[in-house]
Amino acid sequence: MKMTVTKDKLVESVNHVMKAVSSRTTIPILTGIKITASLDGVTLTGSDSDVSIKSFIPLSENDQQNVTIEKTGQIVLQAKVFSDIVRKLPSDTIEIEVDQRLITKITAGSSEFTLNGLDPEEYPLLPVIDEEDNNIVTIKKDLLKHVIRQTVYAVSTSETRPILTGVKWDIQNGKLDCVSTDSHRLAQRVLPITTDDETNYQNIVIPGKSLNELYKILDDNSEESVRVIITNNQVLFKVKNIDFFSRLLDGNYPDTNRLIPTDSKTTITLSTKGLLHAIERASLLAKEERNNVVKLRTHENSVEILSQSAELGRVYEDVPVEKIEGEDLKISFSAKLTMEALSRIDAQTIQINFTGAMRPFVIRPVGDDGILMLVLPVRTF
Amino acid sequence: MKMTVTKDKLVESVNHVMKAVSSRTTIPILTGIKITASLDGVTLTGSDSDVSIKSFIPLSENDQQNVTIEKTGQIVLQAKVFSDIVRKLPSDTIEIEVDQRLITKITAGSSEFTLNGLDPEEYPLLPVIDEEDNNIVTIKKDLLKHVIRQTVYAVSTSETRPILTGVKWDIQNGKLDCVSTDSHRLAQRVLPITTDDETNYQNIVIPGKSLNELYKILDDNSEESVRVIITNNQVLFKVKNIDFFSRLLDGNYPDTNRLIPTDSKTTITLSTKGLLHAIERASLLAKEERNNVVKLRTHENSVEILSQSAELGRVYEDVPVEKIEGEDLKISFSAKLTMEALSRIDAQTIQINFTGAMRPFVIRPVGDDGILMLVLPVRTF
Repeated sequence: MKMTVTKDKLVESVNHVMKAVSSRTTIPILTGIKITASLDGVTLTGSDSDVSIKSFIPLSENDQQNVTIEKTGQIVLQAKVFSDIVRKLPSDTIEIEVDQRLITKITAGSSEFTLNGLDPEEYPLLPVIDEEDNNIVTIKKDLLKHVIRQTVYAVSTSETRPILTGVKWDIQNGKLDCVSTDSHRLAQRVLPITTDDETNYQNIVIPGKSLNELYKILDDNSEESVRVIITNNQVLFKVKNIDFFSRLLDGNYPDTNRLIPTDSKTTITLSTKGLLHAIERASLLAKEERNNVVKLRTHENSVEILSQSAELGRVYEDVPVEKIEGEDLKISFSAKLTMEALSRIDAQTIQINFTGAMRPFVIRPVGDDGILMLVLPVRTF
Repeated sequence: MKMTVTKDKLVESVNHVMKAVSSRTTIPILTGIKITASLDGVTLTGSDSDVSIKSFIPLSENDQQNVTIEKTGQIVLQAKVFSDIVRKLPSDTIEIEVDQRLITKITAGSSEFTLNGLDPEEYPLLPVIDEEDNNIVTIKKDLLKHVIRQTVYAVSTSETRPILTGVKWDIQNGKLDCVSTDSHRLAQRVLPITTDDETNYQNIVIPGKSLNELYKILDDNSEESVRVIITNNQVLFKVKNIDFFSRLLDGNYPDTNRLIPTDSKTTITLSTKGLLHAIERASLLAKEERNNVVKLRTHENSVEILSQSAELGRVYEDVPVEKIEGEDLKISFSAKLTMEALSRIDAQTIQINFTGAMRPFVIRPVGDDGILMLVLPVRTF
């Protein structure tokens, strides 16, 4: 293998695939990045066996030459050291040459690195996913980023019920329904999508960790679309020159519909930020106590947010509301869980439906039926 | 005590004094910030008993009202929670009122905090330093920042010889001579300063930790001067509305002059950044090995920087030099220590004097006699 590649393209690709490389892997070859030089460009691959990322650098792009291939081939290089080296090289183009003993010479300007390569034959093969045979969903990149941000925060971090560490994706009738819950709170986002086959039904659970890594790779270019290809045990997100593979979680996701109250005894409509900031302030005195619990009490034209700590003192704040309907209410809840939900709602105004102090309450942005966030209260009042 | 203060001024002052507050103090009252409302403004004080910082907010500044005092008095409030609260308060002005039981009410907009205050009588008194009776040195703020950056990095982090954890300041004949060493490297900066009494001689050792905190407080307004007042066991830095107190280290600082070679067998003149970046790259393969050692070898018109790791591979790079004089040389040294020195030299070109592979080498910026950085080599070649 022998090729020349522009530094900025190589750095970008290395940054992408590094998101899948874990230093704590038990498979030694996966501490490396696989580099494949073919006639149409260079492909970098990183994997921790749950997530695999392939980043392709085409020979040229927008009339700019990225890569020159003198001899095709492949090599695996220690990911950490290779990414450090690439970033620090002194020139705009980098030459990489591999000999038959896998010794890899990286030359840039007057700097010459000679690295001991690893055998590319040992690197696991990524699943070959044929777009023809599978269900493809298309979703705008910025929309996908929103969906991830608004659901993945609520997945469970505990391995006691592994299925809850993922986000459930339900695809049918041109709709994508995403749900996550850690059994203390729940997030749901429903949105229309483009599918190849509208009658088809898909139900998968994607690990939260994979979605977090995918989120970091998706840049803010909102024009591009992401193609999502679902197989039995894998999902593949394809965007521009990146292929992002994730395994799926096995098992049945619990039916969350029965958790969401359909009635409401107290309904308040108020500013998202107004409530968020009042809870943030109240939580300052609640942090030390267990559970980070704050209280809400309804008044005629406002809700009062309060908390106290025996050691530090107490805080209360009146938050004005647009509308308040139904029964008077006193309720206690985790400031942390509620702030995490509120901070992911972009709408200026929210409606919260309460069904008493002991039942979960439901937060919805006003003017958007597709988003729902549910929080379980805490018994203290 | 009862007063109103603008939020931005209070936040700024709290940020300053927080730099002295440690959560790991053994003196409970020092986990607090002392607030003193007097007729001319508000003073905040934070201390960890080694460093104490006083920040004063005058009633008004540049025709802008900062503070209104309704009733003078003082209180100590938990530093962490008070600083969090102040930052998050919803309005531009904050009212603070303390009752006789030390209960402190903080009101801003519709938010009301009631904090349990601590007894201000328990707060240790800061030394009263009379400017009349002591030696005062005046130094431009940006120059002081440079001096700190170029010396404090070389102090020892080990407590086996406590005196080496400080920077020695020698003041005489209108000159300030700063030296630090951890016995593996040494930094020295000499500069002219303004003293009240030119004939006076001062020799103090300031803890590196104090100088690091002082550095963070000094902003980049280069017009201001800092007055440095030295007493027997304390140094006070006065700038604008901030008083920064540090204790001094006890003991005799070793004579470092004998460590600095006066002769030179090999002298090279080259680009500071060129050498720095070549060493950075070479260190990428040296990191894993102990000591992070790289090698330098002189050639006719260049120096070669190289390193190797049995596991990873090797790297070499030719760095062009402006001038090279004297004997041929091969020398090994710590990449980390040398990079720390080089990255603190602002001059484009440096001269390095070597006196053989086993003796310390001396780096000096070309065109500035006031700065000297010395590194001990490692025996490997």
